[in-house]
Amino acid sequence: MRNAATDSRAAEVYRTAAQIIVAKGYDATSVSDIADALGITKAGLYHYIKGKTELLFEIMKYGFEELEREVIAPARGIADPEERLRAIIAAHAHLVLRGDGAVTILVDEARALTPAQNRTITRLKRQYIDTVRGTLDELQRAGKLRGVDTTVAAFSIAGAINWLSRWYRPEGKLSAGEIAANVAEMVFHGVVKRRR
Amino acid sequence: MRNAATDSRAAEVYRTAAQIIVAKGYDATSVSDIADALGITKAGLYHYIKGKTELLFEIMKYGFEELEREVIAPARGIADPEERLRAIIAAHAHLVLRGDGAVTILVDEARALTPAQNRTITRLKRQYIDTVRGTLDELQRAGKLRGVDTTVAAFSIAGAINWLSRWYRPEGKLSAGEIAANVAEMVFHGVVKRRR
Repeated sequence: MRNAATDSRAAEVYRTAAQIIVAKGYDATSVSDIADALGITKAGLYHYIKGKTELLFEIMKYGFEELEREVIAPARGIADPEERLRAIIAAHAHLVLRGDGAVTILVDEARALTPAQNRTITRLKRQYIDTVRGTLDELQRAGKLRGVDTTVAAFSIAGAINWLSRWYRPEGKLSAGEIAANVAEMVFHGVVKRRR
Repeated sequence: MRNAATDSRAAEVYRTAAQIIVAKGYDATSVSDIADALGITKAGLYHYIKGKTELLFEIMKYGFEELEREVIAPARGIADPEERLRAIIAAHAHLVLRGDGAVTILVDEARALTPAQNRTITRLKRQYIDTVRGTLDELQRAGKLRGVDTTVAAFSIAGAINWLSRWYRPEGKLSAGEIAANVAEMVFHGVVKRRR
């Protein structure tokens, strides 16, 4: 299996394809549209993909690989749950704002996948939610969480961050970094009790 | 123009159609699919809709009419911005959880609309964001807001609430009312400073 993490050309294919699919819709997007946008031939594109459904699945897996590498794996190294939560929120917001917004949106459109592909994506989604919820559960045991259900909180955190891809415009008055910091501040205080 | 607020049959058409379009995708859904789901003929369905694009547009407008009627209009009658913010969050979460999740998701899929329809939907989205942001601006002037940008906060609130439609399952352990209360608690404390 191709490893997108070490293959920047595959990553470019996935990001560009995601942008086109989000703009035109999955059904209305042809493999030729994607090849044209990349400036390569259809035959050249088939070096990277097996077909349209496979491509959609690969883009989704690529999105979760990034999430694992840039958000979840670094978080595992942080012992303090409060610090870990802050790190997860900030890294996730940065990832979505960095130009991977279309990948973020596509991850949510699993209806064109085969049942087996769908199960894989559902499992990857669950890994993310479990990481966030596990951290919230630790905070709850330490008496540091507001009276909120940790499942609802984990999904709401994911929602506020994923939503960034739907409204953020690079030409706006705040930088991506400022927006990420704002979202992190809000989301953190939404769940963690203020210290003394 | 048909007034969905006072026409429960049109509302049923819109809700059912939204569910099918979210499940199958807009391009893959035919007018016959929607007529079949409603148990009526295609000719019967054309009494309510002019065509598929028009239907998509009507569903989106229906979603914003509900938002206006159940969330924004009642909020206008609340003088205190803190109370108003709480009311907006709770009413919006209730609306999304009440079974209008598919409508909520569709409102975000404007790519099949004509430019003129798209402008209308963009204007309706802006009305909602302006209402939330205006309330946050009032709280900021009163010194009651955390140090968060009110535009970022307004979109993040919308994101956390709209995301409910993507993960809520009626058979889950918490009721819709409990989930709405949890989200309202989180989102409220995410932006408003704790008193004293």
